[in-house]
Amino acid sequence: MATKQAKKTRKPEPEKEEGKHEVNPDLTWEELEKGTRPGDKYVRIHRPYARLLRRLAPDYLLATEKVYEPKDLPGRIWSLLHFIAIGRPLPSAAEIHERLGKAKALAIFASDALSSNAYATEEILLVLVLAGSGALGLSLPIALTISLVLAMVAFSYRQTVQVYTKGGGSYTVAKENLGTLPGLVAAAALLIDYVLTVAVSVAAGTAALTSALPQLYEQRILLSLLFILLITLGNLRGIRESGNIFALPTYFFIFSMAGMILVGLFQATTGNITPSAPQEAIAGSEPLTFFLILRAFSSGSVAMTGTEAIANGVPAFKPPEGKNAAITLFWMAAILATFFVGLTFLAQAYGIVPSETETVVSQLARGIFGEGVPYFMIQASTMLILVLAANTSFAGFPRLASVLALDRFMPHQMSFRGERLAFSRGIVVLAILAGVLIVAFGSSTHALIPLYAVGVFLSFTLSQSGMVVRWWRLRSPGWKRSVLINGSGAVLTGIVLIVVASTKFAGGAWIVILLVPLLVLLFLGISLHYRNVGEQLRPSREAIILNPATVRQKVIVPIADVNQASLRAVTYAKSISDDVIGVHVTDEPQEAEAIRKKWREWEWDTPLVILESPYRSLTPPLLTYIEALQKENPEGFVTVVVPEFIPAHWWENFLHNRSAERLKKAVLSMPNTVVIDVPYQLQR
Amino acid sequence: MATKQAKKTRKPEPEKEEGKHEVNPDLTWEELEKGTRPGDKYVRIHRPYARLLRRLAPDYLLATEKVYEPKDLPGRIWSLLHFIAIGRPLPSAAEIHERLGKAKALAIFASDALSSNAYATEEILLVLVLAGSGALGLSLPIALTISLVLAMVAFSYRQTVQVYTKGGGSYTVAKENLGTLPGLVAAAALLIDYVLTVAVSVAAGTAALTSALPQLYEQRILLSLLFILLITLGNLRGIRESGNIFALPTYFFIFSMAGMILVGLFQATTGNITPSAPQEAIAGSEPLTFFLILRAFSSGSVAMTGTEAIANGVPAFKPPEGKNAAITLFWMAAILATFFVGLTFLAQAYGIVPSETETVVSQLARGIFGEGVPYFMIQASTMLILVLAANTSFAGFPRLASVLALDRFMPHQMSFRGERLAFSRGIVVLAILAGVLIVAFGSSTHALIPLYAVGVFLSFTLSQSGMVVRWWRLRSPGWKRSVLINGSGAVLTGIVLIVVASTKFAGGAWIVILLVPLLVLLFLGISLHYRNVGEQLRPSREAIILNPATVRQKVIVPIADVNQASLRAVTYAKSISDDVIGVHVTDEPQEAEAIRKKWREWEWDTPLVILESPYRSLTPPLLTYIEALQKENPEGFVTVVVPEFIPAHWWENFLHNRSAERLKKAVLSMPNTVVIDVPYQLQR
Repeated sequence: MATKQAKKTRKPEPEKEEGKHEVNPDLTWEELEKGTRPGDKYVRIHRPYARLLRRLAPDYLLATEKVYEPKDLPGRIWSLLHFIAIGRPLPSAAEIHERLGKAKALAIFASDALSSNAYATEEILLVLVLAGSGALGLSLPIALTISLVLAMVAFSYRQTVQVYTKGGGSYTVAKENLGTLPGLVAAAALLIDYVLTVAVSVAAGTAALTSALPQLYEQRILLSLLFILLITLGNLRGIRESGNIFALPTYFFIFSMAGMILVGLFQATTGNITPSAPQEAIAGSEPLTFFLILRAFSSGSVAMTGTEAIANGVPAFKPPEGKNAAITLFWMAAILATFFVGLTFLAQAYGIVPSETETVVSQLARGIFGEGVPYFMIQASTMLILVLAANTSFAGFPRLASVLALDRFMPHQMSFRGERLAFSRGIVVLAILAGVLIVAFGSSTHALIPLYAVGVFLSFTLSQSGMVVRWWRLRSPGWKRSVLINGSGAVLTGIVLIVVASTKFAGGAWIVILLVPLLVLLFLGISLHYRNVGEQLRPSREAIILNPATVRQKVIVPIADVNQASLRAVTYAKSISDDVIGVHVTDEPQEAEAIRKKWREWEWDTPLVILESPYRSLTPPLLTYIEALQKENPEGFVTVVVPEFIPAHWWENFLHNRSAERLKKAVLSMPNTVVIDVPYQLQR
Repeated sequence: MATKQAKKTRKPEPEKEEGKHEVNPDLTWEELEKGTRPGDKYVRIHRPYARLLRRLAPDYLLATEKVYEPKDLPGRIWSLLHFIAIGRPLPSAAEIHERLGKAKALAIFASDALSSNAYATEEILLVLVLAGSGALGLSLPIALTISLVLAMVAFSYRQTVQVYTKGGGSYTVAKENLGTLPGLVAAAALLIDYVLTVAVSVAAGTAALTSALPQLYEQRILLSLLFILLITLGNLRGIRESGNIFALPTYFFIFSMAGMILVGLFQATTGNITPSAPQEAIAGSEPLTFFLILRAFSSGSVAMTGTEAIANGVPAFKPPEGKNAAITLFWMAAILATFFVGLTFLAQAYGIVPSETETVVSQLARGIFGEGVPYFMIQASTMLILVLAANTSFAGFPRLASVLALDRFMPHQMSFRGERLAFSRGIVVLAILAGVLIVAFGSSTHALIPLYAVGVFLSFTLSQSGMVVRWWRLRSPGWKRSVLINGSGAVLTGIVLIVVASTKFAGGAWIVILLVPLLVLLFLGISLHYRNVGEQLRPSREAIILNPATVRQKVIVPIADVNQASLRAVTYAKSISDDVIGVHVTDEPQEAEAIRKKWREWEWDTPLVILESPYRSLTPPLLTYIEALQKENPEGFVTVVVPEFIPAHWWENFLHNRSAERLKKAVLSMPNTVVIDVPYQLQR
């Protein structure tokens, strides 16, 4: 068939290879028509439209780029602004080019995980210092424990990304192996965590900036929102460009942080340390209980957030996706663990005590480098990576939302790609939610931290458990080793989850623990709705076959005045039915009489009913009238022909009563009623 | 004719006199039909709808109150809230009952004028004190001069209200006698002044409250906005109720203020004065120039604002409107002048110096009564009348706006009466504008005063000049005396206008002087637009007669999926035309192929065109396709049948892509295109 042929031979980027289609658009109509069934009647597309809609087969048209160009001035201005902010629209076929190499992928997906170095050590110290400065020494063993858990998790995820190359997010893994409900729990946890990642990272980045430039402290909420806006725009431009934007700062951070740790270690081993602050022993306000140590561990475990990013983003890698993702994952975990342990060790070596006014990293950098250029480089790179870490979520949230939307657990708009092939709606939703969090929590990292990490470990645990079930089910070669790896991962992250949830519960984790089931309920509700809609829309011979004789039983034309627009509507109505009635709703009988007179001049063969509405509103009496007509013939259809004149300029709408629009909206909810809009365009 | 008969005999309040119409609704259809032309085919309305739409003639139906009752729960809740805030809807015929007696009219229309006593004296003193406390003695002669001008203006207006009983606003008088442009200038000036009256009065009322209760000072903007909200709701309830609300405070103010002045005069004549503040001579910062005295006069002339209110509101009086209005006007001017001169005299007698923290009236009341109950009564009544003075504008602004709307100088929605017969839209617009002013000027009376009064005197001058021209033109008996009265009024107010405009120019009057011509331009633009629309809508035989053969040349049905809704739309399309094409827009050729297969199952005799949109958006390719069809047959019509399924609950709309709506909107702007909406209501 001509159709199939056309489709197969069509190149992915039609506008680049114009004229090279095998179905020659210059074929005559007769030649084209051969391939179609007799009786089909397609419209011939002549110039200039033949250049806009290219016919690949008689019943297959391809829109070219020109079709999308706005024709009016406001449209052009909007399009220009759009172009400046977001870039040129990309066709769907361009998607393959937007894949990421390992180096760029590391920059995109690692920024979240690496950036937690900026606050993870500090969060441990902040808990330990409650038991006095003597307890700070426990930070190193805690950091080492967390790094061990991290290694285990990374090892576990290596197996996941190699199996789930279409996106091995916890949702997919849990849903496939454990069932829908665990999958949705994982999805809810992840979505919450993505939003928190943006809020925490941006807040911490702003804090890094304002601790170097304290005069900006008052504007911190505004600054945070500005950062979110910038990241949002970057992401709306699409994946490739955001890779370019984010590669530089990530590597800037990696190198400057590595430099600082090396210099610090050198100074520490040579004993050449200048403490940043006078060493005063701080008395503890709480005893050093096991629970306190667990709390410190929980706070430090935020270092692990972001590890799942690569697993969610596998399809964004260049092929072979699985292998490239696994390699990137290894490097990310290695760098993260090294920095985390290194920073914690140095904080101890330099005797740093967490302070209200300066971050631990800032104190450390000052201790190692003094107040010079290297110090500001550390602060700048920390700020940049923190703000840009939010980008990980901007890659992950919309992707997960689109997967959920395709599975009908989220509004299906979430799965639409924008002009630049990014999931624009997900990006915008994430930006708004994170912005709300920033404002609600006053752009404070410490206030947000207790909500964090519960979701991460919940999804870790579900994902690893899913992998265990999978290996058990398939029993492919080497399955025992795989079960062991993912099994220990699951147990370990499960333990951490319980520790985090219980130690942070009162501090804010309860919000997340409450939100997860609510979100799952929402997903299920949406799914139920779509299923209901699908069932009701399923075609059935009995229901759809309307009898053409009854379809246009009655046609009524609401008449506001006898004018060009309404007479046109009446003419149209008469062209589709012999049974047309004009209806004029009035609150002034005298005025109605004048309308009737005018009507008789122009429409002598169509009756006009005057409907007096003593309470002045138009819609209720008209709806009642329509109902009365339907009552007369329950099987029949009432068709309402609405004359509507369209002002030449949009702002002139304010000068007209939008009663036609309100009427249309109201009529749409009535059964067996069809609305016909006969527009009349004013020229000036 | 039956129709006419029905109309004539219909009682103004149909719901009160049910069953008493002379056209008996129980007549048989045949009996009713006798009165109509043969060939007319009206629909019979059976029970239960016959009780909702009462047939007064075959082609005349009257909607009863039940028609307006909402049927769904959200509608009922909204209706209940509406009832609580605004009251029961009133039928148009109830209007006559909403007229005002003289006592209530005085309360409504005088509150503005009388309330200026609260700040007029103070504004004079504030200017004079710039030349030192020695200059304060000039306040009494200035107040007397202003009272003389006031008497002249009131005398002039007495003539106007007796002639213009349909509403003798400056707009009407100036337009009828001087021409449209002067009329519009007067209208612009008045509209600006109404808004300012609300803002100034509410701000001053809040100041009276906060000077008695200083702890509320911080919340003054919120308080002012709250007052505006209350007045707005009161006015939306309609005229009669607002009369009840406002009568009490106005008379409370009149009696308490009269009491204070009498007590004060008694004390002053008996020499029994306790000064409220220690008498310290204040050195002047400016010399006592003639210009300064003129400025003091200008500031004091705000006392006269509100005098025109009665002239604008004549139709709201009970008949005989003119005479009642004239009597009310006399009393208002007399009370105003007495209070103003009395207060100014007492302020001098008690040696009161304007202060930042306390109003002059408050100081005076404290001086006369001390800190007791009478003091608080004065403050309370001042606050009440000030806040309620805004009500004058809430009567005047919407009324003037509706007159302008009927003359097509304002959007015609302004002339619609709301459920309670008030001009709801004008009321809401006024409330919003005044609210904006309150926020912009921080609810400060002193900041707003310089903008005030220019508009008033501009409209005074135009109105009086118009009257002069009128007497000259008609030369009715006694015209010379009338010319003399209105002529001196015009000259006097003209001089005041020049004085006010020049002395207050830099202080803010320039804003008004700039706004008046801009508003006039807006009025003219709106008028031009309506005239253009009217011309384009005027019926003409050539333009309206569409050839029914060409009307439905082509019918296309955009198909998102082959389902109940879209198949129904196709069936409907086939019932009105033989030339139907389904169009499916896609960005995924594979998915389009599936749609085509499904289509063949259900619609074997209707062609389906696949329209590939590589940039994913739906509307542009479809519009181009429609344009291409139109190009094929420029005389013909393209009818777009849009299948639309309507979710069972409004919030479910968020789960659906509103593409049908966007498509409809876009198609409406295309010539020779008709949109048919075939809704499909989901049940759950």
